[in-house]
Amino acid sequence: MVRTHPAVPKKMSNEKKIKPSKELPLGFVDRQEKELLTRDFIISNIKEVMIKYGFEYLETPSFEYTDSIGKFLPDKDRPDEGVFSFKDEKKWLSLRYDLTAPLARYVAKNYLELPRPFKRYQLGTVWRNEKPGPGRFREFLQFDADYIGTKNLQADAELCILIAEILEKCGLTKNDYIVNISSRKFTENLFKELNITNPKKILVILRALDKIDRLGWEEVKKLLAEGRKDRSGDYTKGANLNAKQIKLLEEKIKDTKPNNKDVLEMIKFFELYGFTNFKYDPSVIRGLEYYTGPIFEVNLKFQVKNSKGQVIKFGSVGGGGRYDNLVNLFGNLDCPATGISIGVDRLVYALMQKKNFNIRLVKPVIICVFDKEKIKEYIRILKKLRSSNISAEIYSGEGNLKKQMQYANKINSPAVVLYGDNEIKSGKATLKNLINGKEISIEVENLSNEIKKIL
Amino acid sequence: MVRTHPAVPKKMSNEKKIKPSKELPLGFVDRQEKELLTRDFIISNIKEVMIKYGFEYLETPSFEYTDSIGKFLPDKDRPDEGVFSFKDEKKWLSLRYDLTAPLARYVAKNYLELPRPFKRYQLGTVWRNEKPGPGRFREFLQFDADYIGTKNLQADAELCILIAEILEKCGLTKNDYIVNISSRKFTENLFKELNITNPKKILVILRALDKIDRLGWEEVKKLLAEGRKDRSGDYTKGANLNAKQIKLLEEKIKDTKPNNKDVLEMIKFFELYGFTNFKYDPSVIRGLEYYTGPIFEVNLKFQVKNSKGQVIKFGSVGGGGRYDNLVNLFGNLDCPATGISIGVDRLVYALMQKKNFNIRLVKPVIICVFDKEKIKEYIRILKKLRSSNISAEIYSGEGNLKKQMQYANKINSPAVVLYGDNEIKSGKATLKNLINGKEISIEVENLSNEIKKIL
Repeated sequence: MVRTHPAVPKKMSNEKKIKPSKELPLGFVDRQEKELLTRDFIISNIKEVMIKYGFEYLETPSFEYTDSIGKFLPDKDRPDEGVFSFKDEKKWLSLRYDLTAPLARYVAKNYLELPRPFKRYQLGTVWRNEKPGPGRFREFLQFDADYIGTKNLQADAELCILIAEILEKCGLTKNDYIVNISSRKFTENLFKELNITNPKKILVILRALDKIDRLGWEEVKKLLAEGRKDRSGDYTKGANLNAKQIKLLEEKIKDTKPNNKDVLEMIKFFELYGFTNFKYDPSVIRGLEYYTGPIFEVNLKFQVKNSKGQVIKFGSVGGGGRYDNLVNLFGNLDCPATGISIGVDRLVYALMQKKNFNIRLVKPVIICVFDKEKIKEYIRILKKLRSSNISAEIYSGEGNLKKQMQYANKINSPAVVLYGDNEIKSGKATLKNLINGKEISIEVENLSNEIKKIL
Repeated sequence: MVRTHPAVPKKMSNEKKIKPSKELPLGFVDRQEKELLTRDFIISNIKEVMIKYGFEYLETPSFEYTDSIGKFLPDKDRPDEGVFSFKDEKKWLSLRYDLTAPLARYVAKNYLELPRPFKRYQLGTVWRNEKPGPGRFREFLQFDADYIGTKNLQADAELCILIAEILEKCGLTKNDYIVNISSRKFTENLFKELNITNPKKILVILRALDKIDRLGWEEVKKLLAEGRKDRSGDYTKGANLNAKQIKLLEEKIKDTKPNNKDVLEMIKFFELYGFTNFKYDPSVIRGLEYYTGPIFEVNLKFQVKNSKGQVIKFGSVGGGGRYDNLVNLFGNLDCPATGISIGVDRLVYALMQKKNFNIRLVKPVIICVFDKEKIKEYIRILKKLRSSNISAEIYSGEGNLKKQMQYANKINSPAVVLYGDNEIKSGKATLKNLINGKEISIEVENLSNEIKKIL
């Protein structure tokens, strides 16, 4: 027996009806066929590349103990700020907010059994319990690939290269994207030079610098100094750097000559692999404190519009970096690691707008119902079409022929099969091509071939 | 820029370390490659059949307003019993516990825009906030196909037939599964005959009868009478039927001659479609109160063992039925409907145990690293293999050759490529087949072809 369903409707007859909400909570959306098929296309490309690069397929659950992934949360009053959390019988559970924290837990749990290095990829929904805004979702699909247990920067380089291969498999050319790289060590050295040691202050600076792309230098400078009021009037406290410190920061970050060991080594690998579609960009910061080495960001360069039709600076579809100390939080486990993520839904959104990108929707041929008594005939035709692998259905509603044609048009059916009394007598069906409106009379035996010509 | 990550680890250096949990909450599991590839195989079969049958692909989000899906919950003290719920800013949100309630919400929300009938399928994780037990998960993947907006029982019949087609595409023969059918109208008539009208009592009876398969008639009779104590000592209150009523129920349910209109019509369609792998079984009950017509259940018949290696009565992998009044709860919407679900994870579990079922795992060929200075040579080989679509990697760790061979064996690599100083001099690589242990010396140019022979 299947488990009993937890949900049973109240008896509808003997109580007053309170209409439940038809709406969705903010930050959540229904996804339609075209978007889902584009996503499937991206996912199948991801899987192919992952196999070729030798990554293992893994899936951790949606929930973790909050303390397994919550240790990585900034200090907040509630244990569930930023994440969706539940009190279970004894402990708090949280929905994962990324795939890296669960991976660290998985590696810690299975430390002795795993190969070293351990290369895994995962595709999974993540949730953010944030204030939703336009285009800001609280649920989205991520793809992550990680190397666990190696300090070798060839791993970091391969992560950038495999993302490029995935994007090109999806139809992007070298002009459509760029992988920007830098290293956390670059900013670390910079902070030493500036004599800034307070970790909280460092984080404020990193997050400010992470916004150069979006806000521009003038606004970021405010965040580096006292603070900044945004357009909505919200005030963000700044890092309180002095003018001299800010000037030095700006100079160093605008200097795009590779000058640190991590970046030079990454570039060496890129050259050996023949990968050219990258750029050293010290303004690539990544807001996460746990990075320890190379960091990377994947940016799309083709034109993308928002839901209002305005061209937007789309920015990054993914990124990542080296995090050599994260797994170590679970105990004394020496596990240098590096990983990269792609925001799959973001990539879907952009890809659907890309020139010449088109995903094919297959819609069924409709066999119209003239007379329910003749259903045997319709089923005979249906079976013929389906056995030729043609998407087909007998109109399953109760409407007349006019309604049936409206239905066929509504679902963008390529063709309808008409098989009324006259047709049955003559043994020939009428095939109406809904793309050009033409009708032909044709033996039932030849329907499949004729329909394949239309498709 | 990618949105800022909500999770930032506390500075690790200057605070005491509290080790986070490495364990998973009960009822949640990590899923490994073999299971995931089996699932992918099932999903691709589902999608193929869904296209052929003319269903539209849809995805609703994980969260809904609790009141959108919570109206279908039995009376309980807390709004979130059985489901995972959160208080949002103003309203409660819940993770979906099935895909039918969100579909009803979706149809209500988009009522005017949808084709009639509307045929959609969805694949999605559902969550149950239940006490977890052995083999009882709180998160699982479901596949649903539904017809919305038609009373035509051909729809119900097609749902059974398409499930059969999916199972057969997955490699099951007609001996491996059966579709059992009945109708909710059969029990409704029975209750009339027995003069039982209290909806709560009816639900208790339905749920008792739903357990015949698992508990047998003797135990179910206790649930129909005063009640039953299970093996754990838990007591379930019964329906308090008298001996005469119970006797009549038993007689009627053991009578397997089709005698109601729904079932006879379903059988007529099955015959027209040439579908024979079904059985009328009045003991098919389905625990849900909202069914109004035909109900169906898909049972596997091949041998399945539990995690302890004991052969178990695996039972159903799915089922469904007609629910003509559900969408109507959202307002005065006339939306007869019927649907079927498959518990995909359950099917994965069973299929992996089926004789002759085998999913192929592709593991990378390992190019060993003798000398990091020669990395250029290894990358040249790697690029050759990958461009021939061979899964391959350069060993990315820091171990010596022995460690590298251990790694290759650990991940079940089919072969390693050895290209040390001698090989580089001669221009011939050594290819070691890890399946039979044999080594050959071979030109780098011919490696791909030779490896393909091994795979």
